[in-house]
Amino acid sequence: MEKKTVSIVGGSGYAGGEFLRLALGHPYLEVKQVTSRRYLGDPVSLIHPNLRGRTQLKFSDPASLEPCDLLVLSMPHGVAAKEFDRYQGVAPVILDLSADFRLKNLELYRKYYGEDHPRPELLDQWVYGNPELHREALKTADRIACCGCNATATLLGLYPLFREGLLAPRPIFVTVMISTSAGGAEPSLASHHPERAGSLRVYKPTGHRHTAEILENLPGNPELHMTAVATDRVRGILMTAQTFLHDGWSERDVHTAYRNVFGKEPFIRMVKMRKGIHRYPDPKVVEGTNYCDIGFELEEDTSRLVIISAIDNLVKGTAGHAIQSINIRMGWAETTGLEFTGLHP
Amino acid sequence: MEKKTVSIVGGSGYAGGEFLRLALGHPYLEVKQVTSRRYLGDPVSLIHPNLRGRTQLKFSDPASLEPCDLLVLSMPHGVAAKEFDRYQGVAPVILDLSADFRLKNLELYRKYYGEDHPRPELLDQWVYGNPELHREALKTADRIACCGCNATATLLGLYPLFREGLLAPRPIFVTVMISTSAGGAEPSLASHHPERAGSLRVYKPTGHRHTAEILENLPGNPELHMTAVATDRVRGILMTAQTFLHDGWSERDVHTAYRNVFGKEPFIRMVKMRKGIHRYPDPKVVEGTNYCDIGFELEEDTSRLVIISAIDNLVKGTAGHAIQSINIRMGWAETTGLEFTGLHP
Amino acid sequence: MEKKTVSIVGGSGYAGGEFLRLALGHPYLEVKQVTSRRYLGDPVSLIHPNLRGRTQLKFSDPASLEPCDLLVLSMPHGVAAKEFDRYQGVAPVILDLSADFRLKNLELYRKYYGEDHPRPELLDQWVYGNPELHREALKTADRIACCGCNATATLLGLYPLFREGLLAPRPIFVTVMISTSAGGAEPSLASHHPERAGSLRVYKPTGHRHTAEILENLPGNPELHMTAVATDRVRGILMTAQTFLHDGWSERDVHTAYRNVFGKEPFIRMVKMRKGIHRYPDPKVVEGTNYCDIGFELEEDTSRLVIISAIDNLVKGTAGHAIQSINIRMGWAETTGLEFTGLHP
Amino acid sequence: MEKKTVSIVGGSGYAGGEFLRLALGHPYLEVKQVTSRRYLGDPVSLIHPNLRGRTQLKFSDPASLEPCDLLVLSMPHGVAAKEFDRYQGVAPVILDLSADFRLKNLELYRKYYGEDHPRPELLDQWVYGNPELHREALKTADRIACCGCNATATLLGLYPLFREGLLAPRPIFVTVMISTSAGGAEPSLASHHPERAGSLRVYKPTGHRHTAEILENLPGNPELHMTAVATDRVRGILMTAQTFLHDGWSERDVHTAYRNVFGKEPFIRMVKMRKGIHRYPDPKVVEGTNYCDIGFELEEDTSRLVIISAIDNLVKGTAGHAIQSINIRMGWAETTGLEFTGLHP
Repeated sequence: MEKKTVSIVGGSGYAGGEFLRLALGHPYLEVKQVTSRRYLGDPVSLIHPNLRGRTQLKFSDPASLEPCDLLVLSMPHGVAAKEFDRYQGVAPVILDLSADFRLKNLELYRKYYGEDHPRPELLDQWVYGNPELHREALKTADRIACCGCNATATLLGLYPLFREGLLAPRPIFVTVMISTSAGGAEPSLASHHPERAGSLRVYKPTGHRHTAEILENLPGNPELHMTAVATDRVRGILMTAQTFLHDGWSERDVHTAYRNVFGKEPFIRMVKMRKGIHRYPDPKVVEGTNYCDIGFELEEDTSRLVIISAIDNLVKGTAGHAIQSINIRMGWAETTGLEFTGLHP
Repeated sequence: MEKKTVSIVGGSGYAGGEFLRLALGHPYLEVKQVTSRRYLGDPVSLIHPNLRGRTQLKFSDPASLEPCDLLVLSMPHGVAAKEFDRYQGVAPVILDLSADFRLKNLELYRKYYGEDHPRPELLDQWVYGNPELHREALKTADRIACCGCNATATLLGLYPLFREGLLAPRPIFVTVMISTSAGGAEPSLASHHPERAGSLRVYKPTGHRHTAEILENLPGNPELHMTAVATDRVRGILMTAQTFLHDGWSERDVHTAYRNVFGKEPFIRMVKMRKGIHRYPDPKVVEGTNYCDIGFELEEDTSRLVIISAIDNLVKGTAGHAIQSINIRMGWAETTGLEFTGLHP
Repeated sequence: MEKKTVSIVGGSGYAGGEFLRLALGHPYLEVKQVTSRRYLGDPVSLIHPNLRGRTQLKFSDPASLEPCDLLVLSMPHGVAAKEFDRYQGVAPVILDLSADFRLKNLELYRKYYGEDHPRPELLDQWVYGNPELHREALKTADRIACCGCNATATLLGLYPLFREGLLAPRPIFVTVMISTSAGGAEPSLASHHPERAGSLRVYKPTGHRHTAEILENLPGNPELHMTAVATDRVRGILMTAQTFLHDGWSERDVHTAYRNVFGKEPFIRMVKMRKGIHRYPDPKVVEGTNYCDIGFELEEDTSRLVIISAIDNLVKGTAGHAIQSINIRMGWAETTGLEFTGLHP
Repeated sequence: MEKKTVSIVGGSGYAGGEFLRLALGHPYLEVKQVTSRRYLGDPVSLIHPNLRGRTQLKFSDPASLEPCDLLVLSMPHGVAAKEFDRYQGVAPVILDLSADFRLKNLELYRKYYGEDHPRPELLDQWVYGNPELHREALKTADRIACCGCNATATLLGLYPLFREGLLAPRPIFVTVMISTSAGGAEPSLASHHPERAGSLRVYKPTGHRHTAEILENLPGNPELHMTAVATDRVRGILMTAQTFLHDGWSERDVHTAYRNVFGKEPFIRMVKMRKGIHRYPDPKVVEGTNYCDIGFELEEDTSRLVIISAIDNLVKGTAGHAIQSINIRMGWAETTGLEFTGLHP
């Protein structure tokens, strides 16, 4: 098969670097350019040492992007929207890893991002890049706004229950336990190793921005509350959601809902074991992989349902589902380049 | 001041070992015997290497306990209740670190422990060992059933809001993030380092036993749900609770409630900073100390309240509040022997 | 290409599990049986949760092994030698991951293993499974005794300097910093998470058994001393060796030696950067990969040379080079099935 | 006893913060001022959250230091020497935690620090602040240059063997495994949590600056080589040294040497157990304490001796021995304020 060329704008960060890693291992992709203003001219392996010996690519200037088949934007919040005119002619298919183009609802954007969207006229072009929820639209999308990492974990955990109508109309309390790579590659006192190692911090008790895209992608306008806790893991998200089933539904119905909606998904695994020590999803198990593991437990006497999901924030939460979206868009097998199983132990 | 003698039954575990550490540093306590069947005759510092050079004590036989002023029982679940007749004559004041004597409500015991209490006739003698909630009763208590670690973090975080009547009559969703020392000193596959390091596991989505003692010690029969997540920290608990304020209450009222109820507590610190990187409670900060740090955030438009507390499970959650209870019982300054500030970083 | 069948004896441990992971992803291998007495009948993914969804294999009885093309033995020390008669007819090509068949020198075996070799008559059949040092012999080997993990890191770091004759005839001091997975899957107090997490222990100051196979595979009968330090990493080895160059040799000569000997090796990367934060080999960078990263620094005024190497003990140190040896033996491209690049961060 | 006042110049760093923690808990010290230009006016507990509730001190301006009894300088390399004229009149007794005044030998300074000492005329006034080696001189010292952390671990491990003449005249190879707090409180890419967590880096294969002060404080001008490895621990140093005994000396003689020289030291513990899992020194065990644990193993057939020591770099390696030196200087019991035992697990 003829390879397609892909370039990455903002390749020195963790999201861009992870996309680069996956693209280098993808049989149908050829990485053309990786930009970084700060590291211009340096080998990409200076920053991403895992790529030593895998590529001779050097960081190039974002001002000198050449035409390519696919362009991936991986920039700090707000930059892609602001600079989009520069990039839109570079490639017919563009993916953005930031939150800039994920929302349609301008009021939600204003509420959660604290300002008006800078380019609202662009939003209609974009498809929300969550393969499990928007596969059909992705098949023809030329603008893909990749789903946020915490939103991925939450949406995949909850969506089947909404679609099948199993949840009571009551609040849903979501706790996402996140990792330090989510904060990006820029050093700060909060990310300084002696401070961060061993710490367990509630970093966003209320008002987490990913709430907006979750609300926009769940049917029925639910009341959903999110609290984000920063662990000292490097990668991974563990999402727990607590809410209630409608009267009359049982554990079996929950199983059925997940099977109906996600039964054929290549990257969703149901994890609910009766024995062993790995009975529920654990981000350790999915590290480096594109899997989202999902489990749940029902408290029979109260109908309280606890839903659990685990992903690698940089793979299934970012660069992996970007690759998955590309596979869908290009008509390739959806798992191409995403075969890594993860390690044990 | 004349020293009081204390002996520890079950001193090779983490709770007993932590009590031993604190007792050795307490100016009014003299440790008389520390028992362990498995390590009989070995120096206690063989198992607790931090005590090298601090004591020449050796583990003795629980069958040969001598009379002492204070006896601390630190045994696996169910043993203290079963064997209590052996111990009750040994000392006038007895503390139990297990859950055996914490509950008065036999139905709650049956529901959460899955069996009838083996010695219900003993329960009336015991005072629940939570100094902040039961200080008056502890002053004359001869039987002290020390509060569970997750219960401590949850009760201290929530009690003032209940006592001052600030919470709406709605469910409370508690998530406790716990540590590996909570599982005790006995090796197993689940605690095997290669398996546990790096993992983040929901280990008790519903039905956590500490729920029972929390319910028994909060006024008004609340609907409280707990999910327990096992991190790979060695020590510490981070508790988050999500619920709603009654209409009309503000952040200021929440502050006032904590101040009214806990304003003079020597081991409660309110943590809610507007700047810096340590804005909310973090178990790292309280490691080794008897502090419970408490913070909160109110989402104005929904009245959702997120309460956060952090403790060291083995100190404020177990052996530290046992010492604090002894200080109260003996009329000593409440902070005696509990002065360690914790480390940074 | 027609697939070859491979079975694994002892597949519930970490070495066997890692070989299983790699074999499942290998395009020319088909895993036939994976044995475990303890977990007989359980899905392999119960123990190795990374393999969920990748295989429906269940653990089978070692007593009912069927004929296959390749057999991998992954058993505790001494068992393969003792039970070898059972296995030798099962497959024409057999690899052993233990130390049982690595040495030719019976005195070295006696010195380092504290007993006589139980089956000395078998040793001649075995080729030492270190692809970089014994590639030619591996091409036709039917019995492959895979190199030990610490030996791999040490031999790869030192061999070129010996072959090119650059080292002065003085002692070499090797320090290997190892991981908890090296201790195997069996829980013990030493591997109990609360004890092991955060600890840094010299676990073998002298007398490490891998010294024997290092000595047997370096030319010139060097005086080599090894100290092993146990970190609390899950995977990885960092090897440092300190010794002296012959008078007159320079840093450039050291570079040349490595290039001469390892210049075409697909899994050796020289790491000696002048800038960036990844200037020397780091086991974090090679986690999950079959790479051995090697670096060095020369202290000009003393001719002291510090050699540094890093591997993943379970991949390049065990299962990865077993796959590499199989690739060599079967005439497949040497990197087949070993393409994973590792993660950053 | 009347308290002595102490002020700290540079109190927002880890060394200054640790001294502050210990001084606040010291019964005879009263902390007067803690300076920080960056955090001027902020509570010290904003930066050192462990001190919440323990002190109301705020950071003050180094330009407005008031007279005090003891002054502690804790500034980046070179600043204390450069600015010393400002500080020398502030207090009769001054301690410096940096390397500026540790060396007498100007050539060693030039070799290891790469420049001439800026104030050589000041050096004679300073006593090297290593209590075990220089107790007598410290009793009357008005200028104390506190020993470096890696130097402390190395000197305490080796000094008795030198003083008693047990070592053969051969090179000594020292490996120090260090922690991230050793790099100070200033964020950088190297200390960025996602980069540093999980990494194991040789950061100084040759030329470590502490070599100079070790050489200056060991008798007989030994040939000592040091390699420094950065782990991802927050605190602690594990030092291993490998060298050879003189012919004829035995393990018993090594024990005797340590006993002769350090037998009465309150903070030295010999650790060499025949059973249990804590057989050698481990920095985990001494975290937060002023102990230096020392152990060794002799390889009988080669006379190779492996010496092992462990300290907390910020306590026994910095602020703790500063307090110990103050206790010696002021005639107080040497362990005053340094009673913390450390935690298990």
